[in-house]
Amino acid sequence: MQSFHPPRRTLMGPGPSDIDPRVLAALSRDTVGHLDPKFIELMDQIKQLLHYAFQTENNMTFPVSAPGSAGMECTFVNLVEPGDKVVVAQNGVFGGRMKENVERCGGVAVMVTDDWGSPVDPNKVEEALKANPDAKILAFVHAETSTGAISDAETLCKLARDNDCLTIVDAVTSLGGSPLKVDDWGIDAIYSGTQKCLSCVPGISPVSFSSRALEVVQKRKTKVQSWFLDISLLMNYWGGETKRTYHHTAPVNAMYALHESLVLLKNEGLERAWERHARNHNALKAGFEAMGLNFVVDEAYRLPQLNAVSIPEGVDEAAVRGALLNEYSLEIGAGLGAMAGKIWRVGLMGYASNPKNVLLCLGAMDAILTGMNAPIQSGVAVGSARESYASA
Amino acid sequence: MQSFHPPRRTLMGPGPSDIDPRVLAALSRDTVGHLDPKFIELMDQIKQLLHYAFQTENNMTFPVSAPGSAGMECTFVNLVEPGDKVVVAQNGVFGGRMKENVERCGGVAVMVTDDWGSPVDPNKVEEALKANPDAKILAFVHAETSTGAISDAETLCKLARDNDCLTIVDAVTSLGGSPLKVDDWGIDAIYSGTQKCLSCVPGISPVSFSSRALEVVQKRKTKVQSWFLDISLLMNYWGGETKRTYHHTAPVNAMYALHESLVLLKNEGLERAWERHARNHNALKAGFEAMGLNFVVDEAYRLPQLNAVSIPEGVDEAAVRGALLNEYSLEIGAGLGAMAGKIWRVGLMGYASNPKNVLLCLGAMDAILTGMNAPIQSGVAVGSARESYASA
Repeated sequence: MQSFHPPRRTLMGPGPSDIDPRVLAALSRDTVGHLDPKFIELMDQIKQLLHYAFQTENNMTFPVSAPGSAGMECTFVNLVEPGDKVVVAQNGVFGGRMKENVERCGGVAVMVTDDWGSPVDPNKVEEALKANPDAKILAFVHAETSTGAISDAETLCKLARDNDCLTIVDAVTSLGGSPLKVDDWGIDAIYSGTQKCLSCVPGISPVSFSSRALEVVQKRKTKVQSWFLDISLLMNYWGGETKRTYHHTAPVNAMYALHESLVLLKNEGLERAWERHARNHNALKAGFEAMGLNFVVDEAYRLPQLNAVSIPEGVDEAAVRGALLNEYSLEIGAGLGAMAGKIWRVGLMGYASNPKNVLLCLGAMDAILTGMNAPIQSGVAVGSARESYASA
Repeated sequence: MQSFHPPRRTLMGPGPSDIDPRVLAALSRDTVGHLDPKFIELMDQIKQLLHYAFQTENNMTFPVSAPGSAGMECTFVNLVEPGDKVVVAQNGVFGGRMKENVERCGGVAVMVTDDWGSPVDPNKVEEALKANPDAKILAFVHAETSTGAISDAETLCKLARDNDCLTIVDAVTSLGGSPLKVDDWGIDAIYSGTQKCLSCVPGISPVSFSSRALEVVQKRKTKVQSWFLDISLLMNYWGGETKRTYHHTAPVNAMYALHESLVLLKNEGLERAWERHARNHNALKAGFEAMGLNFVVDEAYRLPQLNAVSIPEGVDEAAVRGALLNEYSLEIGAGLGAMAGKIWRVGLMGYASNPKNVLLCLGAMDAILTGMNAPIQSGVAVGSARESYASA
């Protein structure tokens, strides 16, 4: 058995996205112990940097040592006890996963559904909250990775507060790519992932809990069902108010990478990062529209970092993705769940959100679709993107 | 905020242990998508290599995308349903964590305890199994990382089978360092970690489930309480019998590192790796004994990869560890739980199990303890280790 040498891809799917080379360099630095004084310093810095990224002062802000799905589970297992009612807004795959989480915690999920590709409708949520005065939590996805729709987290959180509910917010795809203000919006529990707009390797899930959420955790009648994700235990390692004690062995090198990606975000500045994502999205959009590809999501609710477009009639969508991968070493995403076979998902996340990627993707898709005699306007995509940049 | 540059340590604690440089090089290779055809090939190879490392043909053998604590939780949440009785043998910290897991799954833990530093006593386990004919599972730690004691997994698994019980085995510290034969011994569910004798970065937990265990999972009356760790869902991604479908985003780069560490183990050969661990342990032991340091565990039950010794009277144990870290950049471990302040734990795991580390550790400890006027025989440790190598 030989060492593995991966091909060099351009990652424009729904994540992992292209990794900043500085992050990969940080990842392979010498491993130190998870209780080493130097590592404790790193942990403190990671917390500070996450405070900035999430725009929060929450002390209990830390990276879960596992992917975003575990971050999601961390918020649910700590806040939901058997019998608790949770209003879950679903407008894509990940709202469904929230329902699974509620039910596996012994809770009752009250579903508020919107069409895939639409944002969560605050009116429907308000109705559900009014109809369920005993609901404890409102859970929703800020940026649906399965469709590319963004929902109005600020309004939804206000509705929850007005109805005495905590909020659990999925920010896996929004963190670093779209405006997100945990404290200003009054979010109580939030989770994200490293592999999207943070341009970091996959595997870690930053989370944050408000003091209001922590009070609820402290008043639990039952133990958190997951030992690994129990924040009352994790607080002894990440809380930072007392001596740090061993809970589990932290993924030390992944923390180096996360730290570096957060330093890069801090140095660029959140606002500038959001603007960059918007600018590159506009160029990609100009190219797609010139080709005649249609977006799944209405313009007002489109995520700049995840561009979902419908497959043109008669086109073998998997063959197009295969050709992009084989001929250009370029990955774009397929549809997920109800959208499988119907859409492509083109990510412009973090480091991957740059003009080079936009032009590569448009040029490659134009060439492949034209070669397949697909019903598109050929030869105009790259020029339209270039014009978008010029007029920006 | 600046990039983080860790110091270069020699890691001789209870893990993470020194990482093979080839593993760090693999870790930072270009990231590909978690459904990329090349990544699927890598996953197949990892499964094959884990079959070798665990000595099993179990199809459901794969790395959990999180540390060993999550691997532990993965075995318990899948096999334990509310009301299930589990006999848990405890002879250190990690047996206690197993109890926590049983209870958080709604199960009933029947504890069989042995002194910390002793192996699990098969006679007591047999009594407990006979006294609890309704027990479903026997759970025990093969190699107790908190004390350095190894238990007779083969005998314990036979007892479980004879009493119609499944087995859950913690092999976090044994995999790659001590003989371990999942199929020959009839282990039903086992978990390990990457950061011990595999010389890989921390953060991933290889697990394996027997077909007998999978049958029990398939007959569950309740859903597995963890969505992230539900093996019936993970099987769609790692099972390999059908098209691989998305469950969560795999920690791609950590998988590169795990693959490389398993290639290194395969190329060395399990038997040779076990012999190497024994040889270096013998040299360290010769040195410690010459100094007058006493092992916590009787010779017959000592793990070669984790050497727990009692602190000599009057010695400030934290000051010694601090001096080792500051003057020699050498990390050794403190005691955990009931052993805190009473012992040091010196790891010789994987890549770290080599003569250079043995002599460095003995020389540095000799110098520091002598400098503190500790009650040891000074100036003889390194020579004794050298003689052990010469006579081996």
